[in-house]
Amino acid sequence: MGKSVFSYVGKKNTVNGISKNVSKMTVSAIKEMAMLGMKYPDSISLSWGLPSFGIPEHIKKAVINALKNDDRAGKYAPSKGIPELCEAIAKRVKVDRNWEIDPNKNVIVTAGAMEALTLCWHTLIDQGDEVIITDPGFSSHFEQLTLVGGKAVHWMLDESKGWELDIDKLESLITKKTKAIIICSPNNPTGKVFSEEQIVKMCEIAIKKDIFIITDEPYDFLVYDNKNFFSPAHVEKARKKIILIRSLSKEYAMSGFRLGYVVADENLIMEMLKVHDSIVICPATLSQFAAVEALNGPQDCVHEFQEELSERRKIFCELISKENDLFDFIKPEGAYYVFPKIKYPGIDAYKFAIDLLEKVKVVVVPGDAFGINGKEHVRMTFCVSREAIIEGFKRIHEYKEKYYNPSKLVEK
Amino acid sequence: MGKSVFSYVGKKNTVNGISKNVSKMTVSAIKEMAMLGMKYPDSISLSWGLPSFGIPEHIKKAVINALKNDDRAGKYAPSKGIPELCEAIAKRVKVDRNWEIDPNKNVIVTAGAMEALTLCWHTLIDQGDEVIITDPGFSSHFEQLTLVGGKAVHWMLDESKGWELDIDKLESLITKKTKAIIICSPNNPTGKVFSEEQIVKMCEIAIKKDIFIITDEPYDFLVYDNKNFFSPAHVEKARKKIILIRSLSKEYAMSGFRLGYVVADENLIMEMLKVHDSIVICPATLSQFAAVEALNGPQDCVHEFQEELSERRKIFCELISKENDLFDFIKPEGAYYVFPKIKYPGIDAYKFAIDLLEKVKVVVVPGDAFGINGKEHVRMTFCVSREAIIEGFKRIHEYKEKYYNPSKLVEK
Repeated sequence: MGKSVFSYVGKKNTVNGISKNVSKMTVSAIKEMAMLGMKYPDSISLSWGLPSFGIPEHIKKAVINALKNDDRAGKYAPSKGIPELCEAIAKRVKVDRNWEIDPNKNVIVTAGAMEALTLCWHTLIDQGDEVIITDPGFSSHFEQLTLVGGKAVHWMLDESKGWELDIDKLESLITKKTKAIIICSPNNPTGKVFSEEQIVKMCEIAIKKDIFIITDEPYDFLVYDNKNFFSPAHVEKARKKIILIRSLSKEYAMSGFRLGYVVADENLIMEMLKVHDSIVICPATLSQFAAVEALNGPQDCVHEFQEELSERRKIFCELISKENDLFDFIKPEGAYYVFPKIKYPGIDAYKFAIDLLEKVKVVVVPGDAFGINGKEHVRMTFCVSREAIIEGFKRIHEYKEKYYNPSKLVEK
Repeated sequence: MGKSVFSYVGKKNTVNGISKNVSKMTVSAIKEMAMLGMKYPDSISLSWGLPSFGIPEHIKKAVINALKNDDRAGKYAPSKGIPELCEAIAKRVKVDRNWEIDPNKNVIVTAGAMEALTLCWHTLIDQGDEVIITDPGFSSHFEQLTLVGGKAVHWMLDESKGWELDIDKLESLITKKTKAIIICSPNNPTGKVFSEEQIVKMCEIAIKKDIFIITDEPYDFLVYDNKNFFSPAHVEKARKKIILIRSLSKEYAMSGFRLGYVVADENLIMEMLKVHDSIVICPATLSQFAAVEALNGPQDCVHEFQEELSERRKIFCELISKENDLFDFIKPEGAYYVFPKIKYPGIDAYKFAIDLLEKVKVVVVPGDAFGINGKEHVRMTFCVSREAIIEGFKRIHEYKEKYYNPSKLVEK
């Protein structure tokens, strides 16, 4: 979705014979900005959703234990995952989605949620098939769909309604080519936690129209101010059509372990397994041992992350409120992103992000990467340390005072 | 390639709305046989190419050290790989392919060779594009190509010529739709090490026709009897069109770490990076630390594996020679596979493999999974322990004496 950041800084690629789908893709703007940011050693990144937390000690111990004592640690794992991890996942899904699944039949352990999503797209999408994606929505969903030749149908959400799902618009978007709806709640990039009422209605429409619901939930543990988290996977009658995708990256500070999973109907899992076996065989076995400990072990680390991120959210929102001549923003209900609108109609968020980086070395992501509604917005994260948030806003303030010249940053 | 083993044992899948490409795939026969084999707790597996060796101690130590002392260990790695690993790869490629590459520009570290291959297919193949694949060739290459809608053009090799590349046939296979040739040497499943002469000629044709050569080399360290290993990557003038794929799985007993890499022209790498970021982001960071130690550390473990596998090859070839009324076979020059022909014209290798499993609990892979030339063949491996090889052949002998009734195993 959106343009390439690199194209703005004069990078072009010239190689013949590249496939049509890949030619249409960009490296995600999130990574492009991160790569540009790396050129400034003292830059402050408010871009990549990579929490500052270290691996919890008990998870480290479990990895070391497996490495020393379990012969399986260095070898390929069974295609669907090591049995004790599939069991732990089934227990977790029962506890927090009230969904009774068979650990042998309904789960594939994947190399992060990204691979799980890739399995969905390959399994469901023929060239030209349509998927309904909220706009704003997660940039990688758009890119992944482009990779398999699918067509993203934008389900436009309304900022003035807090980016809530807009059920009234949904049915008119469904055509004969619609294979699935994908949502991400708590949402990346808006921080919106979609309401139970709207999710139930969405599921009813999906059942009626016989389409799949892919629910990508890496931030399900991060909901603030006692707001209720509700997943499509909670809707019992929809489960034949639900593809639940979860990740351990954020909840257990395990992004580097590349570990997630997909839960779905047994027959669909068997189809996905062909793709899984073909593209990665299995995620790293050591990561699977880490995940067993993460799911079965003490959960104090999760509570610590929740408390600290809640504090960071407070600090972040206070600081961005002070820049209210630059940004309008909606307080996030979950996840750790804020998706402010730059208060200058017609501003090009790419140019803004690059200018901000060049002038004061703060990295943010242009909102266009997250959909048409992302124009004139940037995505920022408060998953970085408090110090980074404070320093970031000091620099943003300095930028505003000294360098900001929006008339030079409008779209041509 | 080939049929589903599961379809032979009465398993069917029934789910609507699956993509055309995935509908045409099977889970690799290698994994299907492994899954069937798991139902017999005391089965002997001569099927999956998973060496019996444990993780070398110095690699374990490096992982533990990273886990304890390197803040990066639990976090996403840079898209192309951690810098020290890209450096180590560049050094290795210089040493053993005499190819000077830029660690920042020509490498992506991948979740095994399988992901590296996936990057190739996505980047090069539009629906209907053609790839020339040796027949016999590696089963997963066929499946992966089906996944992206590509067409495998079978480059038939001749068993009577030891499965050598047949250059005379190559040019006639190239059409306007040909995007690449893929080879795997030492070969899976035949154990053939393709000759320098034939590889150089293949490269000349590829240059003339402006098509890519994908060279998948997980077994490059395993060549017996002082046979010369020669890679297309050695051919300097072809390097603009060479995509070199290597894996640490077999050389360092690291299959569970899911760690491989792709080396190619800078512009092609930038295109592949879009796919890599989209499907997995990066391979596990801990696996990358393990790989740095594997490549930079002592190489004794590799020499030990080479010596032991050489011994196992000897034992295996002696034992299979004794069953020469059942099998014809060519002694492998490299890798750890043997691809014998069952000496009963018209025999269905699927039925043979299933019968062998049911009667004496020995797991082998039906040769059809590796191409049209794989009919009436099975793939067996000697990467398992000496005891397993000996016990496996004891059972095969027993099977032959007591149960083998080939007239009941012919194709309908």
